[in-house]
Amino acid sequence: MTNIENTIDRIQELIESDSDKQLSEELNSYHSADLADIFQQLKPEERLKCITQIEEEKAADVIEYLPPQLQVEILGDIDTELASRLISKLPHDEAADVLGDMEEDESQAYLDQLPQKFSSEIRELLTYNEDTAGGIMTPLVLTVYDNMTVKDALETIRIKAEKENMELYYVYVVDKHNHLTGVVSLRNLITAPMELNISDIMSKDIVKIHVDDYQGHIADIFMKYQFNALPVVDLYDHLKGIVTWDDIQDIVEEETTDEIYTSSGIVTDLGDDDDDLLTGSLAHSIRARIPWLFITLIGEFIAVTVANKYDKTFTALPVIAAFMPLLAGLGGNIGTQSITLMVRGMSTGQIALSSGWHHIMRETITGLSIGAVFGVLVTLVTWGWQHNIELGLIVGVAMTLNMTIATMIGTCTPLVLKKMKIDPAVASGPVIATTIDVIGLAVYLTLVTWYLLHI
Amino acid sequence: MTNIENTIDRIQELIESDSDKQLSEELNSYHSADLADIFQQLKPEERLKCITQIEEEKAADVIEYLPPQLQVEILGDIDTELASRLISKLPHDEAADVLGDMEEDESQAYLDQLPQKFSSEIRELLTYNEDTAGGIMTPLVLTVYDNMTVKDALETIRIKAEKENMELYYVYVVDKHNHLTGVVSLRNLITAPMELNISDIMSKDIVKIHVDDYQGHIADIFMKYQFNALPVVDLYDHLKGIVTWDDIQDIVEEETTDEIYTSSGIVTDLGDDDDDLLTGSLAHSIRARIPWLFITLIGEFIAVTVANKYDKTFTALPVIAAFMPLLAGLGGNIGTQSITLMVRGMSTGQIALSSGWHHIMRETITGLSIGAVFGVLVTLVTWGWQHNIELGLIVGVAMTLNMTIATMIGTCTPLVLKKMKIDPAVASGPVIATTIDVIGLAVYLTLVTWYLLHI
Repeated sequence: MTNIENTIDRIQELIESDSDKQLSEELNSYHSADLADIFQQLKPEERLKCITQIEEEKAADVIEYLPPQLQVEILGDIDTELASRLISKLPHDEAADVLGDMEEDESQAYLDQLPQKFSSEIRELLTYNEDTAGGIMTPLVLTVYDNMTVKDALETIRIKAEKENMELYYVYVVDKHNHLTGVVSLRNLITAPMELNISDIMSKDIVKIHVDDYQGHIADIFMKYQFNALPVVDLYDHLKGIVTWDDIQDIVEEETTDEIYTSSGIVTDLGDDDDDLLTGSLAHSIRARIPWLFITLIGEFIAVTVANKYDKTFTALPVIAAFMPLLAGLGGNIGTQSITLMVRGMSTGQIALSSGWHHIMRETITGLSIGAVFGVLVTLVTWGWQHNIELGLIVGVAMTLNMTIATMIGTCTPLVLKKMKIDPAVASGPVIATTIDVIGLAVYLTLVTWYLLHI
Repeated sequence: MTNIENTIDRIQELIESDSDKQLSEELNSYHSADLADIFQQLKPEERLKCITQIEEEKAADVIEYLPPQLQVEILGDIDTELASRLISKLPHDEAADVLGDMEEDESQAYLDQLPQKFSSEIRELLTYNEDTAGGIMTPLVLTVYDNMTVKDALETIRIKAEKENMELYYVYVVDKHNHLTGVVSLRNLITAPMELNISDIMSKDIVKIHVDDYQGHIADIFMKYQFNALPVVDLYDHLKGIVTWDDIQDIVEEETTDEIYTSSGIVTDLGDDDDDLLTGSLAHSIRARIPWLFITLIGEFIAVTVANKYDKTFTALPVIAAFMPLLAGLGGNIGTQSITLMVRGMSTGQIALSSGWHHIMRETITGLSIGAVFGVLVTLVTWGWQHNIELGLIVGVAMTLNMTIATMIGTCTPLVLKKMKIDPAVASGPVIATTIDVIGLAVYLTLVTWYLLHI
């Protein structure tokens, strides 16, 4: 799909011209993921028209690719019978997510209409916290018993996989009480001699996660060990489901977004229903942005108080005031670069606390080198512009000091926060920028005052 | 592994006490991914000691989990024969990456020592650009012919998968000239009646990538369609290899890091050999940080020029200068929040150009609301502090205007850049912060001057 805007125009034309057959042909020619993209650009009534023109299997697929809010909206708009049929075609974990996002009575109504077995499985999934393994796992797992032969196991899989739309990554081995005892890759199963016992070829070294494990922790395990599926067990080691790599992709994206938001001083966990900051309620978005701005306000009032102590300086030499934004701007920028390198390095695991000193040294040298270059530049420009070499030197020295201090603060703060077991990302943007502002101003104005006293 | 610091202490003790047997037992008890973490914290000579104490299969696994620089370093330090054996145990794509990171003569020496078939396959992989599908794919693909029966296909797979350590996701179907003609999931193959032909059960609707496709593009396809493996073909539709989801994980992490770095004004593509910014050469790190700082320098000199026009104001009422950091700080922060929301939203696909106006409206209302609250706060605090209601009102109004304008600039700029097909992330940090500084200062000082003229 090269140009989504053109596609949408064409689809909107077909809707307006009421040519259902052509519309249906056009829509069914796209991949479900593309249709999901298209749906997000359509108006609600257009979506409604389109969803009824897509084959049901594909429509369920499209629903799966849509963001949660739109899933609930579309299912609420179409007639209940079609909605039930679409929900019953979703993978268990998706169906549970969709129903979990609906109003209680609405989801109950659907659950009552769904096939008995499916609905009871979904009801169980709904009992788990949606941010835990239980909330993201799919309960359909391909299991065999450890005393089966390879031949029997293959036959069992053939029958089970045909009946239910299961994802096949590994085959899990359980005892008769459904305790997880081993795991066999499909590859090993296919290549093993038919007469061997499963217990002979299975691995007992199983990495597993617990139904109550939080999704961030699970994502870390997936990223670190590069698994493509992991079994989920309860307290008694009963196999309850599997979490697959595609469930994790969304979580990793979510966590990255949270990290980026936090670094920019946007609060990601307000404790209320997770309203999306781009599409959710405006009040929610505003509340997410005020806390760190408020802290900045307090910090910057300190800067104002510091600067105000030098009112006589501003009166004597007003150009001193004019240079304040220059110093604050560059200090803030180089400090932000340092914070970003540190916070990201910690989040990807490239920076460990134990190598903290190394990074502090490295960043300080960087700050000092760049600061020296910019200090000389600023000195020369100021000298040429104001015809005042002393002023040039003061601004230049302040620039070098400022940039060096800014890199040091930007490097140390995330390390200290990490040591204190606080998310280093909260250090970014607001707090450090303000700290750098205050210290930078103090350094600069002290230098200036010293100079004025000595001329 | 709960506490890596303790583990490292224990391992270092074992190395010092020269108790090889215990060291070997301790090391072999960890998962390779954990060992890779441990290795990153050890000194070079400790690593050397450890790698020889690990079973070779596992040692190769550990190498695979290590960052590129360390891979090359360790393989260069151990004796060449062991190094060759470890390289030959790596998956093809990893082996090619490792050899590609070495000096030309060093990698040639290894290639000459490796088994004939393996080395010629690696040589082919090395001809591709390492950022393209050819550079990240593995050439071992499980293929069957379309005229085989299911039974024959299963037998073929059994033999092939046993011989070579292949990853099994899908089975690809080729004609006798190795043209890709179809794909069958392992699940469908296992559940299909034995006597059917592969051509009856295969899907001809194949999503495939080209050897020259860039990795960022491939990552987007994986993330959007949620595949776990994709076939790679050349210009003539010959099947050359597969790219799997775990190759993509690293790329997604890399791309996210690039996005975050770019947003903080760090240049990620200097065009030289990709030196890592945290561990690579210091000169490289410094060069990556200077360009946007230099642009900030120019921008802030404009701010200085603007501010300097108001030198008489500073002389008359020096407290006016003291308030400059407050206005710049809050404008910068709320502007950064807006940019972050926009850039991230575009990168995850949540914001499309077509909904630009909606977001501009939404952000403007947000900026105005928060700006109004902060304007009132600042007015009251300034009034109480300076006992000057007019000054309070001026700072307050400037604050409201500043924050509103900052959100608008922060929202519009990424949209405009995107429209111009420039990476919106470059808008962040440096440029916008500086623009907001300049405009904010101009608004504030204009207000002040107007006030001074009217008292």
